[in-house]
Amino acid sequence: MSKKNLAILMRARMRSNNPTKFSLSQFPKEIPSNSQENHSGDHILQNSSEGIGNSSDFGITGRVYDVVRETMHSAISASKTGVMDITLNDFQEGYFSLSLEDRGKLLLALAKEYDVNREQVRELVKQYLGLENPASDDGELHSPKKEALTSVFYRIEWNLKHALKPTYETLFERLNIHPGGLRFLSILRADLLSILSKENTPSLRTLDSYLKEKLGMWLSPATLELHQITWDDPASLLEKIVAYEAVHPISNLLDLKRRLGIGRRCFGYFHPSIPGEPLIFIEVALMETVAQTIQEVLWDNPPIPENQATCALFYSISSTQPGLAGINLGKFLIKRVITLVKKDMPHVSTFATLSPIPGFMQWLLSKLSSQSRFAEDEGKSPSSTFSEKVLLPEEEQALMSISDDSSSGSNGMEVLLNLLSQKNCEWATSPRVLPVLEPVLMRLCARYLLQEKKRGKALDSVANFHLQNGAMVERINWMADRSEKGIHQSGGIMVNYVYRLENIEDYAQSYFGSGKINASPCIHSRL
Amino acid sequence: MSKKNLAILMRARMRSNNPTKFSLSQFPKEIPSNSQENHSGDHILQNSSEGIGNSSDFGITGRVYDVVRETMHSAISASKTGVMDITLNDFQEGYFSLSLEDRGKLLLALAKEYDVNREQVRELVKQYLGLENPASDDGELHSPKKEALTSVFYRIEWNLKHALKPTYETLFERLNIHPGGLRFLSILRADLLSILSKENTPSLRTLDSYLKEKLGMWLSPATLELHQITWDDPASLLEKIVAYEAVHPISNLLDLKRRLGIGRRCFGYFHPSIPGEPLIFIEVALMETVAQTIQEVLWDNPPIPENQATCALFYSISSTQPGLAGINLGKFLIKRVITLVKKDMPHVSTFATLSPIPGFMQWLLSKLSSQSRFAEDEGKSPSSTFSEKVLLPEEEQALMSISDDSSSGSNGMEVLLNLLSQKNCEWATSPRVLPVLEPVLMRLCARYLLQEKKRGKALDSVANFHLQNGAMVERINWMADRSEKGIHQSGGIMVNYVYRLENIEDYAQSYFGSGKINASPCIHSRL
Repeated sequence: MSKKNLAILMRARMRSNNPTKFSLSQFPKEIPSNSQENHSGDHILQNSSEGIGNSSDFGITGRVYDVVRETMHSAISASKTGVMDITLNDFQEGYFSLSLEDRGKLLLALAKEYDVNREQVRELVKQYLGLENPASDDGELHSPKKEALTSVFYRIEWNLKHALKPTYETLFERLNIHPGGLRFLSILRADLLSILSKENTPSLRTLDSYLKEKLGMWLSPATLELHQITWDDPASLLEKIVAYEAVHPISNLLDLKRRLGIGRRCFGYFHPSIPGEPLIFIEVALMETVAQTIQEVLWDNPPIPENQATCALFYSISSTQPGLAGINLGKFLIKRVITLVKKDMPHVSTFATLSPIPGFMQWLLSKLSSQSRFAEDEGKSPSSTFSEKVLLPEEEQALMSISDDSSSGSNGMEVLLNLLSQKNCEWATSPRVLPVLEPVLMRLCARYLLQEKKRGKALDSVANFHLQNGAMVERINWMADRSEKGIHQSGGIMVNYVYRLENIEDYAQSYFGSGKINASPCIHSRL
Repeated sequence: MSKKNLAILMRARMRSNNPTKFSLSQFPKEIPSNSQENHSGDHILQNSSEGIGNSSDFGITGRVYDVVRETMHSAISASKTGVMDITLNDFQEGYFSLSLEDRGKLLLALAKEYDVNREQVRELVKQYLGLENPASDDGELHSPKKEALTSVFYRIEWNLKHALKPTYETLFERLNIHPGGLRFLSILRADLLSILSKENTPSLRTLDSYLKEKLGMWLSPATLELHQITWDDPASLLEKIVAYEAVHPISNLLDLKRRLGIGRRCFGYFHPSIPGEPLIFIEVALMETVAQTIQEVLWDNPPIPENQATCALFYSISSTQPGLAGINLGKFLIKRVITLVKKDMPHVSTFATLSPIPGFMQWLLSKLSSQSRFAEDEGKSPSSTFSEKVLLPEEEQALMSISDDSSSGSNGMEVLLNLLSQKNCEWATSPRVLPVLEPVLMRLCARYLLQEKKRGKALDSVANFHLQNGAMVERINWMADRSEKGIHQSGGIMVNYVYRLENIEDYAQSYFGSGKINASPCIHSRL
């Protein structure tokens, strides 16, 4: 069956059943109203928009699946030519009509059946091992025989490298240069990540590695353009900012207008193939001093006159494509934004962030839970090598003194664990508990930011992001984010990272090289 | 010595000698006034701008070279971090200060010393051969042992593929995301091509293959933006159009203004990292009928009102970067321009070109020269298998009849060869010779375009370019380009290729698949 016939069949079958319910729209037209966050190892907060089709409602799933699979085959195996738009469009449309389950099946077929051509690899590997390395002796440089051997050697290396490329990369490459294809690939990867979170098979994981590598290459900073987003931009772009803002949700149009108005800036990174939608954007507030709470940035009014500003505060960075998780788009963004702001307003001399600490509470609760268990056992057996003193003696004492029915415990850690685990985070509004908790949580937060690591890098994903960009940890702020999310994530604490232009390069180097976390004396003194 | 010290030393040494003569400018500021064409296998005409430094004047060449080489080493081997701008800037500056000879030496060092890590490859290859292909039997899908084996297998394949990447690709990748780096790489490749044309060593050739592959990836159509270039664009952009127009040189500002004015369009492909300069641009004339001569496009006035146009004629495509030779940037350009024009002016229904035939005369002269030798020998020995009848009997007769002192010959081919080889192309202005040559050259030109191939594709580079984009050969036009260049290249003949929207995809497919050259009956009848 020709691919055209298949496409027609597919449309006919899908439409004949329930044309009103079934959508063939190429991309999900609506932006998801509930932004969903993704903290798993990724440095910035992300949204999810997957646009799963609903063909499974129809009982023709199997046939639709077969047709999409056939289209995928055509898209990969058609001879190389610039003009295969129809096939690629059909494949995209068909893919969107599949349920997530069928998408998973399709991606597994892609991973397994369009994998590396291993026969060819083995053949080339044998040829390669049979050849002597011509570069090893440089004595007779211009012997024609040696030149010929060298050529053969290089050619086999080149061929082997290309043979090791999985066949499915052809599909990625063809989609990349197809209109809308790059965005499609990002949605496909979002699906893949969602499938991998449930079933982590080696072939799908490998498919993801190659796709991630390609996307990282195609979305390199060289291809991204930095634009200031203003109130004059099209509503279709602005509504995306509202939908994708993941750090401090935008409540209404007035709120958005304020974030784009006087004393505020918003910059986005755009890719030529994904017009009208930033891949990542950053919100900046122009201030007199580095803000300590997010409330002053978001709610206090009016903003100061811009010519009085000495500080540019980055208070939100959101990426819009969950399919680009793990690809560091923000890396060059901050540096470019600093350059841009500096050029525009030379009187701005401080570049700082007011950042969430997304992993603090999670780390603390798990630490308290494991250590209070050790502490319990201590009476019975000699202390374990894994046990450590989480609390100072005076903290222990203070916590025991506020222990009551709802937060009783045999030691300070248990009391703290119980307090922090109360539903509705009651501790955060209790005048009795709060003053006791403040010094404890602030000290532990400093420890979390400055000392807790994973593979030699800061454990906190946002900390890792700014440190690798060359920032230093400047200050932590008590009750800086009183939103439910803020209390829940980090006990309401926020952190200021500071970018000092003269140190950015050295700090990034030393963090990259030795994992050194640069921090101000003020935060060091809290340890 | 640290890289900073090296950079300072380099500047000091270079400046101390002759600060007025020595330029450290990052890019050659001036556009070369003599555009230089490059027909060698490339489909479009190209310019050359190399910006070779003049450090060899100073007698400190050796030391400067050493410093640049050291900087190159730092740029490759520095730990991976976003902030190595200083090193890359130093390397670019240093490179520009070298003579072409030293650049060649540097590129050879890059190719040889930052090559594939062969020890690592051999180690991985051995590991790879020791493993069983886990994909071969799919019986027990979910055995954990098998999963683990599969993971190892995939990982070794991944590692082997990456180990086969030459170390110098790191330099390319770092430059690509460095401001100005992509343009620098294109200049570096132009140098490399120029060096290769003199000394084609396997390692430099391999360096070029990898660089070309990378550039092709980074300049994929997905990263290019199509803009209409108008008289309202900055002069700095417009002067580049004047400098880079390689097909029909722009004589003055008035000429340029006309090419951007009513009834004309100019579109360019821009890359975000190379702002203010198109990588390739195309000039379009809006006409009532498909023009037969370039004179009517360039000189006739005034242009027709745009609403009377039914034909968009592509009369010039120029690429601006000699370092991007062999990378088909124009592939998607024509399709996108057609879409854009069609959207803007639905009454335009014909999309055609008026194109040069850059290889015709060269092919014909070489054919005549070899065949007239065969013909000479024919009396003595039996006819060779390589001999063929180039001329029809009536052409033979007609040519012999106009033979005179300056074009005598023992057969028609020799007469034709002598006529075409006359200096100043006298034949083209001779009322006696011209009518005799017209049918001969037109027939042979049709044969050249429709039947002469190289590796299964049209021998003529411009023909190959349009055919692979899905065009057909529509018509050839006598005395369509009377410029010296036109007479010299193609006997003044030009060709119209036509893009029929409904056939583009099929034609491109059949040309790609079987090398079929689609042509109109009118041109077939000339054969």
